[in-house]
Amino acid sequence: MIIVLKNNSQEKQVEELLNWLDQFHVSTNLVEGVHSNVIGLIGDTTQIDIEAVQAKECVENVQRVQEPYKNANRKFHPDNTVIDVAGRKIGGGKLQVIAGPCSVETEEQIITTAIAVKEAGATMLRGGAFKPRTSPYSFQGLGKEGIDLLIQARKITGLPIVTEIMDLSDLDCFADVDVVQVGARNMQNFTLLKALGRSDKPVLLKRGLSSTLQELLMSAEYIMSEGNQNVILCERGIRTFEPATRNTLDLSAVPLLQQKTHLPITVDPSHATGIASLVEPMALCAVTAGCDALEIEVHNDPKNAWSDGAQSLTPAQFAETMKKVKALSEFMGKPLDVNE
Amino acid sequence: MIIVLKNNSQEKQVEELLNWLDQFHVSTNLVEGVHSNVIGLIGDTTQIDIEAVQAKECVENVQRVQEPYKNANRKFHPDNTVIDVAGRKIGGGKLQVIAGPCSVETEEQIITTAIAVKEAGATMLRGGAFKPRTSPYSFQGLGKEGIDLLIQARKITGLPIVTEIMDLSDLDCFADVDVVQVGARNMQNFTLLKALGRSDKPVLLKRGLSSTLQELLMSAEYIMSEGNQNVILCERGIRTFEPATRNTLDLSAVPLLQQKTHLPITVDPSHATGIASLVEPMALCAVTAGCDALEIEVHNDPKNAWSDGAQSLTPAQFAETMKKVKALSEFMGKPLDVNE
Amino acid sequence: MIIVLKNNSQEKQVEELLNWLDQFHVSTNLVEGVHSNVIGLIGDTTQIDIEAVQAKECVENVQRVQEPYKNANRKFHPDNTVIDVAGRKIGGGKLQVIAGPCSVETEEQIITTAIAVKEAGATMLRGGAFKPRTSPYSFQGLGKEGIDLLIQARKITGLPIVTEIMDLSDLDCFADVDVVQVGARNMQNFTLLKALGRSDKPVLLKRGLSSTLQELLMSAEYIMSEGNQNVILCERGIRTFEPATRNTLDLSAVPLLQQKTHLPITVDPSHATGIASLVEPMALCAVTAGCDALEIEVHNDPKNAWSDGAQSLTPAQFAETMKKVKALSEFMGKPLDVNE
Amino acid sequence: MIIVLKNNSQEKQVEELLNWLDQFHVSTNLVEGVHSNVIGLIGDTTQIDIEAVQAKECVENVQRVQEPYKNANRKFHPDNTVIDVAGRKIGGGKLQVIAGPCSVETEEQIITTAIAVKEAGATMLRGGAFKPRTSPYSFQGLGKEGIDLLIQARKITGLPIVTEIMDLSDLDCFADVDVVQVGARNMQNFTLLKALGRSDKPVLLKRGLSSTLQELLMSAEYIMSEGNQNVILCERGIRTFEPATRNTLDLSAVPLLQQKTHLPITVDPSHATGIASLVEPMALCAVTAGCDALEIEVHNDPKNAWSDGAQSLTPAQFAETMKKVKALSEFMGKPLDVNE
Repeated sequence: MIIVLKNNSQEKQVEELLNWLDQFHVSTNLVEGVHSNVIGLIGDTTQIDIEAVQAKECVENVQRVQEPYKNANRKFHPDNTVIDVAGRKIGGGKLQVIAGPCSVETEEQIITTAIAVKEAGATMLRGGAFKPRTSPYSFQGLGKEGIDLLIQARKITGLPIVTEIMDLSDLDCFADVDVVQVGARNMQNFTLLKALGRSDKPVLLKRGLSSTLQELLMSAEYIMSEGNQNVILCERGIRTFEPATRNTLDLSAVPLLQQKTHLPITVDPSHATGIASLVEPMALCAVTAGCDALEIEVHNDPKNAWSDGAQSLTPAQFAETMKKVKALSEFMGKPLDVNE
Repeated sequence: MIIVLKNNSQEKQVEELLNWLDQFHVSTNLVEGVHSNVIGLIGDTTQIDIEAVQAKECVENVQRVQEPYKNANRKFHPDNTVIDVAGRKIGGGKLQVIAGPCSVETEEQIITTAIAVKEAGATMLRGGAFKPRTSPYSFQGLGKEGIDLLIQARKITGLPIVTEIMDLSDLDCFADVDVVQVGARNMQNFTLLKALGRSDKPVLLKRGLSSTLQELLMSAEYIMSEGNQNVILCERGIRTFEPATRNTLDLSAVPLLQQKTHLPITVDPSHATGIASLVEPMALCAVTAGCDALEIEVHNDPKNAWSDGAQSLTPAQFAETMKKVKALSEFMGKPLDVNE
Repeated sequence: MIIVLKNNSQEKQVEELLNWLDQFHVSTNLVEGVHSNVIGLIGDTTQIDIEAVQAKECVENVQRVQEPYKNANRKFHPDNTVIDVAGRKIGGGKLQVIAGPCSVETEEQIITTAIAVKEAGATMLRGGAFKPRTSPYSFQGLGKEGIDLLIQARKITGLPIVTEIMDLSDLDCFADVDVVQVGARNMQNFTLLKALGRSDKPVLLKRGLSSTLQELLMSAEYIMSEGNQNVILCERGIRTFEPATRNTLDLSAVPLLQQKTHLPITVDPSHATGIASLVEPMALCAVTAGCDALEIEVHNDPKNAWSDGAQSLTPAQFAETMKKVKALSEFMGKPLDVNE
Repeated sequence: MIIVLKNNSQEKQVEELLNWLDQFHVSTNLVEGVHSNVIGLIGDTTQIDIEAVQAKECVENVQRVQEPYKNANRKFHPDNTVIDVAGRKIGGGKLQVIAGPCSVETEEQIITTAIAVKEAGATMLRGGAFKPRTSPYSFQGLGKEGIDLLIQARKITGLPIVTEIMDLSDLDCFADVDVVQVGARNMQNFTLLKALGRSDKPVLLKRGLSSTLQELLMSAEYIMSEGNQNVILCERGIRTFEPATRNTLDLSAVPLLQQKTHLPITVDPSHATGIASLVEPMALCAVTAGCDALEIEVHNDPKNAWSDGAQSLTPAQFAETMKKVKALSEFMGKPLDVNE
């Protein structure tokens, strides 16, 4: 951490700052210049709140040199994290494809869709039971019943299930779920993150609509600092000024996150674009970018879906997409996992 | 709602769409043109999910004419909502000023600050007990103990207290709080919103960092549709590309929300700017814009604050600001309430 | 400027960097730490391209301590710049109001409007002759003829005229114009800025749709570094994700710019909001924020305007707004100038 | 175009609107509902300014059904446009790679780099002679001399040259250039676009930092409506809140533009990311997305580049990247063109 002092800072203020920094057990290095003095901090600065430093009277500005996250930081954990999901490995050199409907609607719908996505090559099943909807008048999900239907679909297909938690109070419903998803709107629901950190269940953490990559990693750190290292990051599009797509998929996030962290990375082209015809090209780009998993919305009857129909693929479209995903993933050297 | 049909849509598809629309008890009006046909919907369309319509095969695009919120809509409730907070009225023609530290830190800190802000003319006390912090290594708030300290400060000063809830599981701690604040990161924590909707406690709902005004109103609708009409909206800056301020304060939100809703509106210039020297000018602009309340961070010793020191005013700065707020609020015709 | 070196940087690379820095006549101060070394630069660093430093092999990151602009910097020019426009002063403690139609359309329109805005208290006349329109099929302005009509309107009303230049090749048409406006889309048309810098005509420089305040100041610097110090900055709304208004007016830009620069500041609430009913409240907020001038669109018949009718005030609405602007500007201590 | 009328609109106002619409030779279709009336417009509505409609007293809101661009619209030109650049075809089923330094600096630099990029498989040479720099104190390019050096490099390597025009007044310098580039900051420099539209030289039009895809297409329309159909679009990253990359590359723009227009599409991963290590992964993603050309910055000595060194590849890095680009482009079915 580099602290630039104000030109007119008083000796006493600087002394107070140095004393205050002492509590963090970092060594400090004061450099005196003609126009302004600088303090260099050496040691573990993750505990130091950069805004608290900024508030000191004698501070002009502050800059971190080291990242404020440790558990998620590749510098301290050079090897990729591999997460075991009911025997499948996310981050282990094979591509996983998580597919299924936005919402679980009926037994027939989820089972038909589950069988179809498995046949096409998907390796995990997604489906929303608790649904975060902008309007209170929209379908809010089947809740616990939805999770029971997912479990039924898992029995039939063998696909591990991924489903979203919206509130800590529902945690019990997720005991038999394979991967707990934290949605974009909850990326900074810190109470929820900490609770998930105290379990050992894999957590798929989606980037918030306007969250920086560093904030995403800090949210992962919330989970990891409580003990649970099984965190999967997910890029799902960010909010920009462009109205033609629901969000803007930030694919540079994939290689950038791979530099900064050892955690596996998923891409969700369905929510990122909101348009079915863009899902396949963006899924293929994500494979090229080197993601460890894709999350794709598939519905047995999109035009009658209770939510997100406009971005859902039909089983036939998904099967076409999967052929290309399979071929490209092999070409790129991270082949699609076998879904047996 | 106006539905534009695709050029090549088949009669059968359109018939299916019309049948599907029947369930919402709206009347439909099919207009045939040369290039494209249009369906006009008349009646209460709030129950209709615009994305479900968009997913129908024959639909080119859809446009709402009416807003998707009812309880919060000024069209159906022309008079301003006035919310009673321990005898003070928010939205009743007097300006309220909610002031206090970002976090409650110690008994001395909160009580000193509470006395100081009251003396300067503040009409309510704010202070964070449960703190949403980006880093798990930053101070997370005193929790229940912080609320107890706020209650003590209220006893001494008589100021009603406003404090943030981060999770449903903490709801019991807020029984004796006057206004429950929902922070920007929780604006779309729908489970929490619904639970607060089942109480009758005033809720101060902050706009999310990248939430549109319509999404803010839909979140208010979540609370109101459960029964609780005591919702206070808060503009606190949105996330943009500009790095010079923490956020960008969207003051046009104030008159725009006043056109669209009957709910009272608060402005938080402290979080909006993140810079103490900008708090006063933005507070005064907010008064000019016609807000019903201001929320301002004041700390008895900002340079040693445990959080957000850089944006906190000292009691002396706040007293200066309040003189100007008082004078301007009178000039603008919505005078500062008396804090006796 | 603070340069943080990479952990593993080689002595030779650092030596090369120090030699390269020598050409800028700054003194360098190398501080060796345990984890990373830091170079502090002292002297005038405006000539140093921060990206060129970033590209050096041994550099981890770089941070400016001083602003990269000199002429526009308040540090070096503490007193406010006052710009004389045909006898009126912008930045001299009186508020100027520049009003008129988006486009000059006909003699009758511009003269009727000019008389009306003068009567209401405006102190300058605006009107577009060269119009930057998103579509090539929209009205592109009357060009030279439009400027002639403005000059006619000036003869009748005595109001100085402000009009936009779109391209260097039209510069001759602006010889008899009082203030040359550079629109948001041309804020980084550097060739144009330099050419305007070689004249002494006042330039009203509008902030680009997605330009940071520092970029705005660097564009002012382009003009000033060529000699012309008569630059007026204009905040006119930035592009964000919010669809309810055309742009988001960033009013914190006003006090922030006043801290950073000595140049006068205009606010354009018409383009910022795009909605006539928001122009008055935002104009009043801008006065409260301390702007030196307002630029407001007024049309004698907005519903038949050839451009931007939805955000134009009628003469009657403008007269109402001006009454409030006058009263508020006096209250705030920077009274509306007298338009005689 | 669908025009929704206000509830309380008067018959006379609606009649005036209908009369006004008559001038555009579209047929109108008035539909009367219970709550609001709707006018459907049929015919060519590109000439109608949507904002002019919005300004009419009786109009609640307006929505375009058809795109406001014609020449660039795939609906009216289903076949891909193929642009001939000195014998090479952009958009003709082969991938072109435009490589070279940000700025032309010296004869040695541009010729060394040109030979290196050709050897690695690039099919065109880029290099900036007129440079749009944020700071007036940064290197502004060699101007005409830079173009002469590019022409020399073309003589030696046979690579067609692509270079940026900053102002109409420099147009003569571009007579012997193969492709004229319009930079992001000039995307809405409409005077320049129209002038380029009157030549037949290929124009590479870069998307503005905060321009929507529709605005990009409207700028292409400016060029095309003057006669020049040789427009190449370029996605080069948009400005968002994310600070980790210089811009956010919007790859969904590629398939989306391919749906909307017949014009070829280039991707510039260098400016999009600003970080050399992200250029290769994003270049490969762009190939997967189906772009027709890549534009990549390569410098013979990035650490001493006069501009943009941090995002430039070395010739060795570029050669590595090109091996992968070549293989992937063949796999995806749009193989890299042969550069003989």
